[in-house]
Amino acid sequence: MTAASRVSLPDLDRFCRAAFLALGANAETADAATRAMMHGTTLGVDSHGVRLLPHYLTALQGGRLNLNPQPKKLGGFGAVEVWDADHAQGAVGAYRGMARAIELAGQFGIGAVGVRNGSHFGPAGAYAVEAARAGMIGVTFCNSDSFVRLHDGAMRFHGTNPIAVAAPAAGDPWLLDMATSAIPFNRVQLYQSLGVTLPEGVASDVQGVDTRDAHQADMLAPLGGEFGFKGAALAGVAEIFSAVLTGMTLSFDIAPMGGPDMATPRQMGSFVMAVNPEAFGDRAGFDAAMAHYLNTLRNSPARAGCKVMAPGDREWQVAAERLENGVVLDPVTLAGFDHWATRLGIVMPDM
Amino acid sequence: MTAASRVSLPDLDRFCRAAFLALGANAETADAATRAMMHGTTLGVDSHGVRLLPHYLTALQGGRLNLNPQPKKLGGFGAVEVWDADHAQGAVGAYRGMARAIELAGQFGIGAVGVRNGSHFGPAGAYAVEAARAGMIGVTFCNSDSFVRLHDGAMRFHGTNPIAVAAPAAGDPWLLDMATSAIPFNRVQLYQSLGVTLPEGVASDVQGVDTRDAHQADMLAPLGGEFGFKGAALAGVAEIFSAVLTGMTLSFDIAPMGGPDMATPRQMGSFVMAVNPEAFGDRAGFDAAMAHYLNTLRNSPARAGCKVMAPGDREWQVAAERLENGVVLDPVTLAGFDHWATRLGIVMPDM
Repeated sequence: MTAASRVSLPDLDRFCRAAFLALGANAETADAATRAMMHGTTLGVDSHGVRLLPHYLTALQGGRLNLNPQPKKLGGFGAVEVWDADHAQGAVGAYRGMARAIELAGQFGIGAVGVRNGSHFGPAGAYAVEAARAGMIGVTFCNSDSFVRLHDGAMRFHGTNPIAVAAPAAGDPWLLDMATSAIPFNRVQLYQSLGVTLPEGVASDVQGVDTRDAHQADMLAPLGGEFGFKGAALAGVAEIFSAVLTGMTLSFDIAPMGGPDMATPRQMGSFVMAVNPEAFGDRAGFDAAMAHYLNTLRNSPARAGCKVMAPGDREWQVAAERLENGVVLDPVTLAGFDHWATRLGIVMPDM
Repeated sequence: MTAASRVSLPDLDRFCRAAFLALGANAETADAATRAMMHGTTLGVDSHGVRLLPHYLTALQGGRLNLNPQPKKLGGFGAVEVWDADHAQGAVGAYRGMARAIELAGQFGIGAVGVRNGSHFGPAGAYAVEAARAGMIGVTFCNSDSFVRLHDGAMRFHGTNPIAVAAPAAGDPWLLDMATSAIPFNRVQLYQSLGVTLPEGVASDVQGVDTRDAHQADMLAPLGGEFGFKGAALAGVAEIFSAVLTGMTLSFDIAPMGGPDMATPRQMGSFVMAVNPEAFGDRAGFDAAMAHYLNTLRNSPARAGCKVMAPGDREWQVAAERLENGVVLDPVTLAGFDHWATRLGIVMPDM
């Protein structure tokens, strides 16, 4: 890691957009995919940040993702719509869906959109935050290819199935964006390469037996340790809303994200929802209650040597720092950028 | 525990109703409170079952709860309604709210109701199951008086803030009904009386330091162990939906459930939602996807000596057993029943 690999966020944003467009992706794809990845990178959720760019380019080139998707409304009634994302990069359908959910919530107090024929959409929080920026509570569910065992299970059953909720607050939104597994699978991979021992109860071998050896880890544990039935059930909530309700592929049937087949669409579903506080009471009352909640939380007693934070506080701090100083890219991501810059004839971001 | 203390569920149901009516509670209160408690007792969630009857009777007699509540619609628009429960026993507002949410979801595809001026509503799952029985996905959030620290916190901040989700399935519904704390507080009390050591990381002393000594335990840990920020954030989701959105009391401001003040209404909020699968696609498609999900889950490989279950499976098994054999009441609950039977001039259930 050298000073030379530090990139400003606007330069990163421009590079991602340029790469998508140079590959022949349409403007909506370039915009949506870039915004979602930049949400991840800006907030320090690097697993769902610009490191995904080479993956998405590969999938667009291979045909798994549609370079020129034309999302369309399929059905629904009242405060619900169902959209077909036309095998777009995942952020396209999720942003479209949330935009519609926000409009529906303006009209009906609440709005929900099921997205069909989507794909990996990156950070779930990116779409929930859209609702919060519009003054609403946003909720996002997605499933993904399976890495996580059930409670007492010995099979990769659920994906890391994220749940994201964002709520408007003074300043940056309250933001929960969580995997329903104990840890993400890329932490297992990181610990493999570093030779570090895993924490207790977060991963299991092929028999489902807990292991702290990252090389033996075949599947993740659901959130909750000995109460892992709760984490597994929360993964189930994400699964039911995103895949059962939309008629899309269940986690254990989804083709692996990493290939080898980069030509076949993965037919993934997602669910986004916006809730309008003004349907429940006046805006001033909501804002005052949220302020009372967050002020009490941020000033509440902490354990010795600790500080209490609201969900999202840490991420928004990282965002402020990175907006100021840029971000240092990891070597694997940099190499992927180099490869694609050459291939597409675009210039690398300034470092 | 003797054979003599075994009671049939219909007899228990009749006793609860008779007690409420003898105290002067109106028919809706007797019905709703009894149904909610019987949900808990039937499914083996005894902490939220008929053991609460003496507490509710005390609160109704003291004036905290309204003997003759007249819930009314306060506002909302589109697919959202806000109801004032008129300080009824908590199940009254929650059942009314979910009944309206189901009707709204029939009309708009999704329906949400915020309930104001409610109180302790018992098992959150009781209301989510109503939606599932009507063919919809039900969601319930509530907050409660504070017992649970934040991640790295040293204050009783959130209640055990439950999240319940139920989905229609062949046979009994898929059902998640979880506290967002690691364990319920009554388990701490049980371990105190039994002199048993607590599991690691589930409770803390007054400084927020983890303790396994039940007598030192002053607050509960949020779900998730070292990932307790997820459990604390899920408690926050329940708090924002049930209390911030409805303008009701936040957990840390709610008067203790156990008194000493049994005269002042606690002004608690709750949030119930129903989602209509038929707004997202046809019923047969939803049913088939749910069946594929649950069949795969129930037949998936388990760890040695274990069995994999879907959320709710264990509870519905208990329900089948108790419907057949009745239930054995604990001595404290029995003594409370005896006390109130004498006071109200009603006969104890057959044992």
